[in-house]
Amino acid sequence: MSGLSLPWSGPPFQPGTVWLVGAGPGDAGLLTLAALHALREADVILYDALVGADILQLARPDATLEPVGKRAGKPRPTQQAINDRLIERAREGLRVLRLKGGDPFTFGRGGEEALALADAGIPFRVVPGVTAGIGGLGLAGVPVTQRGMNSSVAFVTGHGSAGDVPGDLDWVALALGPQVLVFYMALRTIGTIAERLIAAGKPPMTPVAVASNASLPEQSVLITNLARAASDITRLNPGRPAIIAVGEVALIHNRLAAWQQVGPNGETLADGTGPTGPLRHLAPAL
Amino acid sequence: MSGLSLPWSGPPFQPGTVWLVGAGPGDAGLLTLAALHALREADVILYDALVGADILQLARPDATLEPVGKRAGKPRPTQQAINDRLIERAREGLRVLRLKGGDPFTFGRGGEEALALADAGIPFRVVPGVTAGIGGLGLAGVPVTQRGMNSSVAFVTGHGSAGDVPGDLDWVALALGPQVLVFYMALRTIGTIAERLIAAGKPPMTPVAVASNASLPEQSVLITNLARAASDITRLNPGRPAIIAVGEVALIHNRLAAWQQVGPNGETLADGTGPTGPLRHLAPAL
Repeated sequence: MSGLSLPWSGPPFQPGTVWLVGAGPGDAGLLTLAALHALREADVILYDALVGADILQLARPDATLEPVGKRAGKPRPTQQAINDRLIERAREGLRVLRLKGGDPFTFGRGGEEALALADAGIPFRVVPGVTAGIGGLGLAGVPVTQRGMNSSVAFVTGHGSAGDVPGDLDWVALALGPQVLVFYMALRTIGTIAERLIAAGKPPMTPVAVASNASLPEQSVLITNLARAASDITRLNPGRPAIIAVGEVALIHNRLAAWQQVGPNGETLADGTGPTGPLRHLAPAL
Repeated sequence: MSGLSLPWSGPPFQPGTVWLVGAGPGDAGLLTLAALHALREADVILYDALVGADILQLARPDATLEPVGKRAGKPRPTQQAINDRLIERAREGLRVLRLKGGDPFTFGRGGEEALALADAGIPFRVVPGVTAGIGGLGLAGVPVTQRGMNSSVAFVTGHGSAGDVPGDLDWVALALGPQVLVFYMALRTIGTIAERLIAAGKPPMTPVAVASNASLPEQSVLITNLARAASDITRLNPGRPAIIAVGEVALIHNRLAAWQQVGPNGETLADGTGPTGPLRHLAPAL
């Protein structure tokens, strides 16, 4: 790692501080230079379940990796426990990297961690990342905005603190307001969401795109509509992350994905994902 | 440049193809590894006005740089002219990089360019970037979502094709729906936006954060409210990019920015931008 310099030099990662960093939607190519810098400097990394092995292996070989996401058979630690652990590790004088999927401030609870650190007097930094609602959908061939189609887009979490659809949403206003709606973590609640949007006046034929494993080699994209979404979605692996776009932009996928893709070795791919498919990261050059 | 390998190897940049790439909100540290890869490989780079010199200098020394943004005394080329130029340069057999501020698909017209390329039979790729509405606000200490405050956030363009507030927005639904609203390119139209939101029922005291030059060393953040926004905003340079957040999350800035920041040389900074300030990119190490 040493000797491999980045063409960007940010602030040094000081011992006793915490960096709250977004790792992007999955593909290591969507990691930022600042995130890579943090990975190379950190003493300890507290990472979410959605951060993949090809990103974690960019860490210093002697860094300590602490998973704090959901794992098989084990529940996710509480947010309070994660906050406490960040503070504890920083007070040990370590460079603490809190690595999250996507962007730390977009349904990532980064704001809660930042406030906890501020309250505890721990210096910290924030490094934004590419959020799945934009980058994952983008690689799935779904632009969240398209001139002539929408001048607004709303991002909505598909499950609230209790795991159900959030209770504080005005579904009529959501159905009538932003022309495109993007739902995070909504695979299990899409049925309820579709029902409420249709009841609020959204046409049942409104196009829906579902990107599963967005940006990863296993990416799959389902194009459906509000009326059919809940039944069609059962084809996708419920254990994998998915992002759902509701609105006319969903259909752009069909026009972009039909075009040929240039593969890693120059070949033309016809794998159905199109030019907006995964970036197909290969073995790292490190 | 050669000999400096990235810890990520994406698909090669094939001659005769176009990559549509987001450069992030400004700080080179928010460039993705895939964007850096594209910069190093491209023969010709068509770039927007918001892409800074410290990012462009990462290009190959012999690459051709073609500005296609607004420049002093000159209007921005039409979107059609940019589409045509991308196609023309690709047909010359060049590796064509279309480099945009933020994310290409978030109010970036990347979808239009992608469709034009697909229609012309030019192979292309999309590389998402960190959008200013998330990353710029994040570095300004404003999380676009905060559990307990909002389960949805809408991104809205502050000026439509005619330069005025877009005509297709349902202001009542916007005022009542997403608990946080983020406006792009709205410095000139914030007065109209605030009036319409207040008329639609949004309380005049709703907090507003305005991040100017977000992520750059010149970043400044203004915290105000809907009633005062139009007059307060005259303090900011109207010629610089700004992103505006409306909602309770704007006040988180005050709680985060008060905390100390660790500077490039380990010193404690007290410059008012706080731990979420610019990443302070220094001279590149290349």
